[in-house]
Amino acid sequence: MDKKKPIRRFKSFRWEETDLLAYKEEGSAPFKAITRQTLFRDPALKCELRYFEMAPGGYSTLERHQHMHAVLILRGRGEVLVGDEVREIATNDLVTIEPWTWHQLRAGPDVPLGFLCMVNAERDKPSLPTDEERKALEADPKVAAFLKGT
Amino acid sequence: MDKKKPIRRFKSFRWEETDLLAYKEEGSAPFKAITRQTLFRDPALKCELRYFEMAPGGYSTLERHQHMHAVLILRGRGEVLVGDEVREIATNDLVTIEPWTWHQLRAGPDVPLGFLCMVNAERDKPSLPTDEERKALEADPKVAAFLKGT
Repeated sequence: MDKKKPIRRFKSFRWEETDLLAYKEEGSAPFKAITRQTLFRDPALKCELRYFEMAPGGYSTLERHQHMHAVLILRGRGEVLVGDEVREIATNDLVTIEPWTWHQLRAGPDVPLGFLCMVNAERDKPSLPTDEERKALEADPKVAAFLKGT
Repeated sequence: MDKKKPIRRFKSFRWEETDLLAYKEEGSAPFKAITRQTLFRDPALKCELRYFEMAPGGYSTLERHQHMHAVLILRGRGEVLVGDEVREIATNDLVTIEPWTWHQLRAGPDVPLGFLCMVNAERDKPSLPTDEERKALEADPKVAAFLKGT
């Protein structure tokens, strides 16, 4: 990996020498209007720090995995599903996503939502819910409303 | 370690369930007007994410170590010394501090400087400069002015 300049300037939620990437491969999982930038990844670091940003109305994939997410909201507002809890989130709030906890983030209808996410560099791949698991989540009306984006 | 609530609210650069700590033990090294909050530390994570904040005129310790620092400026403005470079830094800029690189951060004279710092959970202790190393750094007038805070 190329070494980064020691200082990388911030420009309206883009950073120098930092590519704007697709969130995931298109069609691999459900998501909407979300981009990814890897702010720090280095053999000397055992974690990566990524920045994800969703346009208004955008959302990440509903998924879970062994690895933990450590999230800091850097921009805007939205909602997060963590397990069976739906919570509003705003700039600088912290979100801890424990191993094997279903989670999804959604930007507000009229504001973007940008967040930092720290993860272990070595980590497992996310699992998507089965139809049964999705139905179990939707049994809670609040969770069902969140998943529909209403 | 106690499990954290999944969402921790941000309150003016303090977070719920997150202690405001001394930067280091008083007298262990030179520093001024700087505090520490550990935002994420968990056995499931191989890194920690800390938030440091300096009051106007405050500074961190001039030091170096094997472990890498991955820094994102979260609040305010200031200057950083990385190796033999002195650079201005502002909110959301990224700073990479390579292993064994001398570094120090300083808040501006009239603004605080708050920053996130990601580090490996397992890491070595910092080294302070010897008198000779400090003199070598001060041979560069820009670095000397930075270290004096002028």
